[in-house]
Amino acid sequence: MKIKDLAKKYKEYAIDMRREFHMYPEASWEEIRTSKRIQEELKKMEIPFDVVARTGVVATIEGENKGKTVALRADMDALQVEEYNEVSYKSTNEGIMHACGHDGHTAMLLTAAKILKDMKKDIEGSIKLFFQPAEELAQGARKMIEEGVMEGVDSVFGIHLWSDVEVGKISIEEGPRMASADLFKIYVKGLGGHGSLPHQGIDAVVAASAIVMDLQSVVSREISPLESAVVSVGSFHSGTRFNVISNEAILEGTTRCFNLELREKFSSILERIIVNTAKSYRAEGSLEYTFGTPPVINDKECSEIACKSVEKLFGKEAIEKMEKVTGGEDFAMYLEKTPGIIAFVGARNEEKAANYPHHHGRFNIDEDALEIGAALYAQYAIDFLSKEK
Amino acid sequence: MKIKDLAKKYKEYAIDMRREFHMYPEASWEEIRTSKRIQEELKKMEIPFDVVARTGVVATIEGENKGKTVALRADMDALQVEEYNEVSYKSTNEGIMHACGHDGHTAMLLTAAKILKDMKKDIEGSIKLFFQPAEELAQGARKMIEEGVMEGVDSVFGIHLWSDVEVGKISIEEGPRMASADLFKIYVKGLGGHGSLPHQGIDAVVAASAIVMDLQSVVSREISPLESAVVSVGSFHSGTRFNVISNEAILEGTTRCFNLELREKFSSILERIIVNTAKSYRAEGSLEYTFGTPPVINDKECSEIACKSVEKLFGKEAIEKMEKVTGGEDFAMYLEKTPGIIAFVGARNEEKAANYPHHHGRFNIDEDALEIGAALYAQYAIDFLSKEK
Amino acid sequence: MKIKDLAKKYKEYAIDMRREFHMYPEASWEEIRTSKRIQEELKKMEIPFDVVARTGVVATIEGENKGKTVALRADMDALQVEEYNEVSYKSTNEGIMHACGHDGHTAMLLTAAKILKDMKKDIEGSIKLFFQPAEELAQGARKMIEEGVMEGVDSVFGIHLWSDVEVGKISIEEGPRMASADLFKIYVKGLGGHGSLPHQGIDAVVAASAIVMDLQSVVSREISPLESAVVSVGSFHSGTRFNVISNEAILEGTTRCFNLELREKFSSILERIIVNTAKSYRAEGSLEYTFGTPPVINDKECSEIACKSVEKLFGKEAIEKMEKVTGGEDFAMYLEKTPGIIAFVGARNEEKAANYPHHHGRFNIDEDALEIGAALYAQYAIDFLSKEK
Amino acid sequence: MKIKDLAKKYKEYAIDMRREFHMYPEASWEEIRTSKRIQEELKKMEIPFDVVARTGVVATIEGENKGKTVALRADMDALQVEEYNEVSYKSTNEGIMHACGHDGHTAMLLTAAKILKDMKKDIEGSIKLFFQPAEELAQGARKMIEEGVMEGVDSVFGIHLWSDVEVGKISIEEGPRMASADLFKIYVKGLGGHGSLPHQGIDAVVAASAIVMDLQSVVSREISPLESAVVSVGSFHSGTRFNVISNEAILEGTTRCFNLELREKFSSILERIIVNTAKSYRAEGSLEYTFGTPPVINDKECSEIACKSVEKLFGKEAIEKMEKVTGGEDFAMYLEKTPGIIAFVGARNEEKAANYPHHHGRFNIDEDALEIGAALYAQYAIDFLSKEK
Repeated sequence: MKIKDLAKKYKEYAIDMRREFHMYPEASWEEIRTSKRIQEELKKMEIPFDVVARTGVVATIEGENKGKTVALRADMDALQVEEYNEVSYKSTNEGIMHACGHDGHTAMLLTAAKILKDMKKDIEGSIKLFFQPAEELAQGARKMIEEGVMEGVDSVFGIHLWSDVEVGKISIEEGPRMASADLFKIYVKGLGGHGSLPHQGIDAVVAASAIVMDLQSVVSREISPLESAVVSVGSFHSGTRFNVISNEAILEGTTRCFNLELREKFSSILERIIVNTAKSYRAEGSLEYTFGTPPVINDKECSEIACKSVEKLFGKEAIEKMEKVTGGEDFAMYLEKTPGIIAFVGARNEEKAANYPHHHGRFNIDEDALEIGAALYAQYAIDFLSKEK
Repeated sequence: MKIKDLAKKYKEYAIDMRREFHMYPEASWEEIRTSKRIQEELKKMEIPFDVVARTGVVATIEGENKGKTVALRADMDALQVEEYNEVSYKSTNEGIMHACGHDGHTAMLLTAAKILKDMKKDIEGSIKLFFQPAEELAQGARKMIEEGVMEGVDSVFGIHLWSDVEVGKISIEEGPRMASADLFKIYVKGLGGHGSLPHQGIDAVVAASAIVMDLQSVVSREISPLESAVVSVGSFHSGTRFNVISNEAILEGTTRCFNLELREKFSSILERIIVNTAKSYRAEGSLEYTFGTPPVINDKECSEIACKSVEKLFGKEAIEKMEKVTGGEDFAMYLEKTPGIIAFVGARNEEKAANYPHHHGRFNIDEDALEIGAALYAQYAIDFLSKEK
Repeated sequence: MKIKDLAKKYKEYAIDMRREFHMYPEASWEEIRTSKRIQEELKKMEIPFDVVARTGVVATIEGENKGKTVALRADMDALQVEEYNEVSYKSTNEGIMHACGHDGHTAMLLTAAKILKDMKKDIEGSIKLFFQPAEELAQGARKMIEEGVMEGVDSVFGIHLWSDVEVGKISIEEGPRMASADLFKIYVKGLGGHGSLPHQGIDAVVAASAIVMDLQSVVSREISPLESAVVSVGSFHSGTRFNVISNEAILEGTTRCFNLELREKFSSILERIIVNTAKSYRAEGSLEYTFGTPPVINDKECSEIACKSVEKLFGKEAIEKMEKVTGGEDFAMYLEKTPGIIAFVGARNEEKAANYPHHHGRFNIDEDALEIGAALYAQYAIDFLSKEK
Repeated sequence: MKIKDLAKKYKEYAIDMRREFHMYPEASWEEIRTSKRIQEELKKMEIPFDVVARTGVVATIEGENKGKTVALRADMDALQVEEYNEVSYKSTNEGIMHACGHDGHTAMLLTAAKILKDMKKDIEGSIKLFFQPAEELAQGARKMIEEGVMEGVDSVFGIHLWSDVEVGKISIEEGPRMASADLFKIYVKGLGGHGSLPHQGIDAVVAASAIVMDLQSVVSREISPLESAVVSVGSFHSGTRFNVISNEAILEGTTRCFNLELREKFSSILERIIVNTAKSYRAEGSLEYTFGTPPVINDKECSEIACKSVEKLFGKEAIEKMEKVTGGEDFAMYLEKTPGIIAFVGARNEEKAANYPHHHGRFNIDEDALEIGAALYAQYAIDFLSKEK
């Protein structure tokens, strides 16, 4: 029996699992029930596993033949979003919702496990299944890696169900696909004083406002127009009273880009602007730059393998071009360790009201996507491991 | 017996009263004990009085001859400042302190009451004594006026003990002496969105920063360099998370000036900048402008009378020129009703550690100033009432 | 004889022609000698032609069979650049130089004419040869079109020799390849006055500076980070004397993008910022927006044809990916009329010192590129015309 | 005969002289005819003189008794203004006009010379008469001083006829009366490049615009609201073409204040802002600060003498208060050397159309002011010299 047929056979399983996860969504680092259920399912399948990174699970399917190791990854955490869908499997956990499709990811990977288990003799090497916690905080992948899950892994493959792509279509493209997502904090130190005597103080509100203005030129003047980049200041807090010169301002923001070199430069660009503009105003400016997730850059060779996997399963017409995404994904951290790829599997279907954006209270997927994703997970694993022949 | 001698006679009384008020400081609108003690003292002196404006007291001393009416004003509230002076009469009310000299003002006006009581036959008209609450909030004078205290008053005279002027010196100058103090709030309405997709939102942080920058030109470009004016933004609050485009910014600030015409213009100048700059950024800007206190503008004629009062009491050499003050005083509201003057009575004496600025935890006065101020209150009252002859 | 062989046969001709044009470079709209020589060559080949757009030439090669019409375009103008190359064919026209490769374009198209003349029986339709003036001013294509050259044309094909691509490589990619290039002028009207009395004037320097600052947010905040866009202010002129408030500012700049919808929006975005920011400063702002060239957007189908042409001639390995270019090309105007494509033909060869950027005084091409480009012109023409079969 | 009577006697002379100077106005440093006529008149009066500072004249009247030395100063240059007055003595020198009253100053000082010559026996010391060139360029006083005219001078007295003060009124006030007037130049060095590739250049337009914005905070935030100060950028020139990143910006401006300490600080404040803001933008900023004229600060004692002189001549009611002036006067340079005073002598009379502002093409004076000014010159000289007794 071929992968596609197996996927069809387990379709109902995939849907059931997804709905169950959807009904019991759990926030990042709190995926207790989800983790337990995954473990139970794996036990039923007689697939050995380890619990890692608090709630994470890493299962291993050994092929009958020796070979390389490929990892398939699904994330499992939900969001602090109130669900507005009226469905039988609506979230029962108030204020928490699977509004980004991770319920589907987990269900697809469990389904892929079933398929792969049935195809053991076709597997030439090892397949690791990563059930990852805390993707929404960009912390789960790092923790999994710190605990050693990437040791010996030759390629990593992830799927993101995607509401901007029609169900049946799949985007697999080499190069940058999702942006880096870093965090910065700006501190401006002025000198308090009475609002009626501005010259006796150093006005942190004005200095920080000038910094915000000057930061607009990072994207408009310092970065190639052919590069996608974002510098956003999300919050600006300064001062306590209308008639007191504020002595401090604290600003927080994020940078995004798709280019590792540029990402390295952000902190020195920002620091130059912050320190010097503050000096212009007699204030002291400083920057605290925290690296979040790097850009997701799909490997060329792995992309080619995955494209062929898609063609085998669903034909060339299933492949669709999609613009890259300014959101971040901590899948990028696995890609820092080994070549791999994330595929965007279409989940949109307006007729089924599966056309709301990710993180929206009405987000939903066309569940036909589950069968597709499960098949693709399995196919990539088998294709990657057998590629050398 | 002349006023000066009477003042000397009651000096100890003035100091005792001031120390008592200093020991039991009370915040604005909470001058309960202070008000009670004033009433007790007035009763002892057999001076009739009314309680107005919650804790305020208005006493009346009728002269033996009919004539005009003059009001003498002292404010009585303390500040939320921790006292650091180590004195026998240190504040017993934790976190509250008479750090602006209002204890002295009240003591001086009670002492002046004693003096004037002794001189009844020299008084040609009526003398009102205003013990005013809540000056620090710029609310007490308004409330007193609303309750009718200014009816029939022909001139109003106030004293501020002043730590920048040496004890023994007095500044009495016609024209603008203290600034207007108004409050403004700026609202900038943007549109929230994800920090990685700035173009889908309207960034309130950037729009509000541009407004702060543009507001600097009010003083630098729109107001005559010969006018003193201040536009300070004391607080700027916008946004909740580093990676979310802020949908709103709220800024608070104050304006100051010494010119009634200019004061009227501030709100339209600010509104023009706020509304149009916000529009530049696709945002909506709006202004809420609240009139606080007008500038204190000493009347020419009253200043001349008061100058002569000072000369009579302490000679010409007691008169000192002092730069005007950008702080506000709600005494200005009485001056909107009737001509009058505020005098700055020197209270500085480095040897007595009476050299800290107002509102400082080590603020103190040279108590020799009390006798001087009490005499001046009385002298101005008598001189104003007898001026026509 | 096949196209590739013919191209080899005429290689020397191509080089001779290119060197001749290089020696006698002519500025935009002054391509008199160039035009005359083209006409002479066409006469020798017995190819009929018309002179259009002052110095432009449109020749027509009719195939033996009826069919569609394809246009091949070469531009012929040089730049006001001083040549620093020491070559036998160095510019003899001081201060004018073929520093952008248009000499090669013209030579290649003449060579293609020779090839196509020899292959008449293989041509199923008509081939137009466009020798265009004044590309550097973005005026020639418009003029040619106004004079009707595009009537009946079904596809247009252009080549740009490219110093960033190695000789032997060719970039042919569908979609946006070169940016739109528009011009804007900003007028800020203030009110003059003495520099010592800023409030009596309206300072155009400050208002225009605020506009420049606010314009930085167009790219940083209003345009998707996934779009490439540029708003540059190239010049800012305001004021005459250090002590006089400037009453006017005039700024000039350019916008760039690869997206027709965005291009349409630029003027309203800019106008909103200019008008409102000027109002913030009591000034009047206005915008004069002039459409230059649209983005060059290669047609999908034509790109596929051209890719196959390249593969036939030089094999798949000749095709190279190249980042798109923020410079503009008035070839875009032909593409507004009919589907087509511009190909970037590699001309770089460090060993031959052909590695300087376009518009540089040491710009040069590897002349091996001429044979390649000539063959490609011819191949595309024949392939496009025969595609339907 | 008393001074006032002598002034009346010579009134016609004063008017004749003023009209002659008015008819033949000469620009700064070109006061050839004016100087010659002054010399002729002094010769007629038998007053010895020296020619200094090219066209300047210093005459000396020795009293019969020994004593101190007082200098009386008049400036003699006209402006590049077209005259629009239709008067018999209209300017015959096209494009040049006495639009600031210096014709009157010179006429008054010559008239004072006549008066003083008649009163020689009442003079106890020496009187110098300074006829100064090039006041409008703020160069004449410096040159006169360099050539030694201030040696041995104990007090200097100047008069400015003033169109904001009614004829008959005189403003003589101690302290700052006219502002300092300094010049600054800002250089911003960026890096040129193509307008479509901003990141390859350093945009001097943007960096200089940020500097202009930041400079607004000098007055709004760094200088006491009780100080009058101006920082104006009069011109901003940067860039040559709409599509080229500008590599340099040059800005020129002026500062004004009335306070010597503040004046000393301007250059370091400006430099801090220019250098650091430029750095924020990767550019290099530098400042060239040129001291022009210091503020005119009238000496207290000399003001008292002059007030008494006015009272003697015209009574107390002639004295009028006038706001200080943000314009500069190089008379300030004499005051750096010795105590003195400038008096503003009213020349306004709406009925005589003498109500246009200085430097206007319809500026004129009420010639009754000439007799007043001449008398005051003489009276001050005599009073200053005799003050010690």
